Amino acid sequence: MVQRITIESTQYTERSGVAHILLSDDQRHYLHRVLRLQVGDRFIAQDGKGQQWIAELCDPITTALVIEAISTDSERCSAPLRLIAALPKGNSFDQVVRQATELGVSHIYPIISDRTLLKPSQNKQQRWQKIAQEASEQSERITVPEIAESVAFSVLLKQQKWEGHQYICAARQEAPHLLEKIESDLRSADTLDVTLMVGPEGGWTSNEITDAISANYEVVVLGSAILRSVTASITALSLVTSVRELLT
Amino acid sequence: MVQRITIESTQYTERSGVAHILLSDDQRHYLHRVLRLQVGDRFIAQDGKGQQWIAELCDPITTALVIEAISTDSERCSAPLRLIAALPKGNSFDQVVRQATELGVSHIYPIISDRTLLKPSQNKQQRWQKIAQEASEQSERITVPEIAESVAFSVLLKQQKWEGHQYICAARQEAPHLLEKIESDLRSADTLDVTLMVGPEGGWTSNEITDAISANYEVVVLGSAILRSVTASITALSLVTSVRELLT
Repeated sequence: MVQRITIESTQYTERSGVAHILLSDDQRHYLHRVLRLQVGDRFIAQDGKGQQWIAELCDPITTALVIEAISTDSERCSAPLRLIAALPKGNSFDQVVRQATELGVSHIYPIISDRTLLKPSQNKQQRWQKIAQEASEQSERITVPEIAESVAFSVLLKQQKWEGHQYICAARQEAPHLLEKIESDLRSADTLDVTLMVGPEGGWTSNEITDAISANYEVVVLGSAILRSVTASITALSLVTSVRELLT
Repeated sequence: MVQRITIESTQYTERSGVAHILLSDDQRHYLHRVLRLQVGDRFIAQDGKGQQWIAELCDPITTALVIEAISTDSERCSAPLRLIAALPKGNSFDQVVRQATELGVSHIYPIISDRTLLKPSQNKQQRWQKIAQEASEQSERITVPEIAESVAFSVLLKQQKWEGHQYICAARQEAPHLLEKIESDLRSADTLDVTLMVGPEGGWTSNEITDAISANYEVVVLGSAILRSVTASITALSLVTSVRELLT
């Protein structure tokens, strides 16, 4: 497996038809010291927005020569797949970000719901974005999911409006199973754009469910099992990703 | 949500039609000190094999009076769901055990495959069994999954033979998607008994896949995404659990 790094668009420079990547100190350290690549060795650089290049370490190791742009089919479905997830206790949102990225999520909206116990600290968003980037590189994804700043559930409902299929996953409700819904909804519609809401450990309050329904989210369940919030997010995403793959 | 503990069958005693549960030191500490239950407070005791009782703390807090046996529908499907998973690096098998338990797995077989880097230490099985028990209580499952001792992949294939549907999940293979397979296999067959094999980080070796095919495992994929071993196990289980729920 070829090693890959994610670069900022400003790191890519082109002059007289020859393209170079200016490496940051961290990237230089990672490629040379951690991966032990030498001058002339190749790796993959990606901009996290869909572009990837094969690059070769130059001497001195401050830049890399771009050999060629590459295309990949590792992300067959390019329709958005958004996860709106109530923040769980402790550090387990790290795990949500990592596993959701592996499963092809395009956007993650961490939210503070009525039953969220802790407000996240300021630098959490940056931490999650970094986890998303690393997980994206490991999973050979060509795009890095965007992690939004945490906002209150009510604020998100007011600020963000999307097209496509929108579901709120709830436990202990009389509602159709997510798998059943997406199989029929995605098959019959002309968009694979999906937005999923997953609640906190104690579940959504009935007010939150009512507000989501008013904002055109359909209530679904993930089965009769009682899942922790982390597992619920991953279960919901794996169902949507699998159905989308079978339809594309 | 009522708190629950798992007891050994020897802790349940019945005399003249009155049943008691003899609490262990740990359980007494947990109920009284951690959960702050007082004499007369009620909780749920379960034997992890399908039986559950409402129990009431007695004075002194060394026993609990069994009030009544209860039934629950939180496990609709009682057909076995086995996970055979190659041990990943570090402690991430803890997470596999926890999430797999939430998703209704009945048996977990940790295996040492050709690409497994570390052999687990002796007391790992007990640790995983404890995690399974805790996750089972939290998810309100009435049974606790059995965690087997780790064995080599080849040994497991020789020793364990099951009826039902058997799949080996592989990455980067030309094979049907697990979702597609189970939807058609479970719908058309008269058993919901499923066994899933999930490989290590580097994937199965081609010899392992050949041996699994000889032992009647069908090769399936979980999509085009490159998943870590932990996420692959959870994805596979969530697909099987969801399809089984829709069919029962």
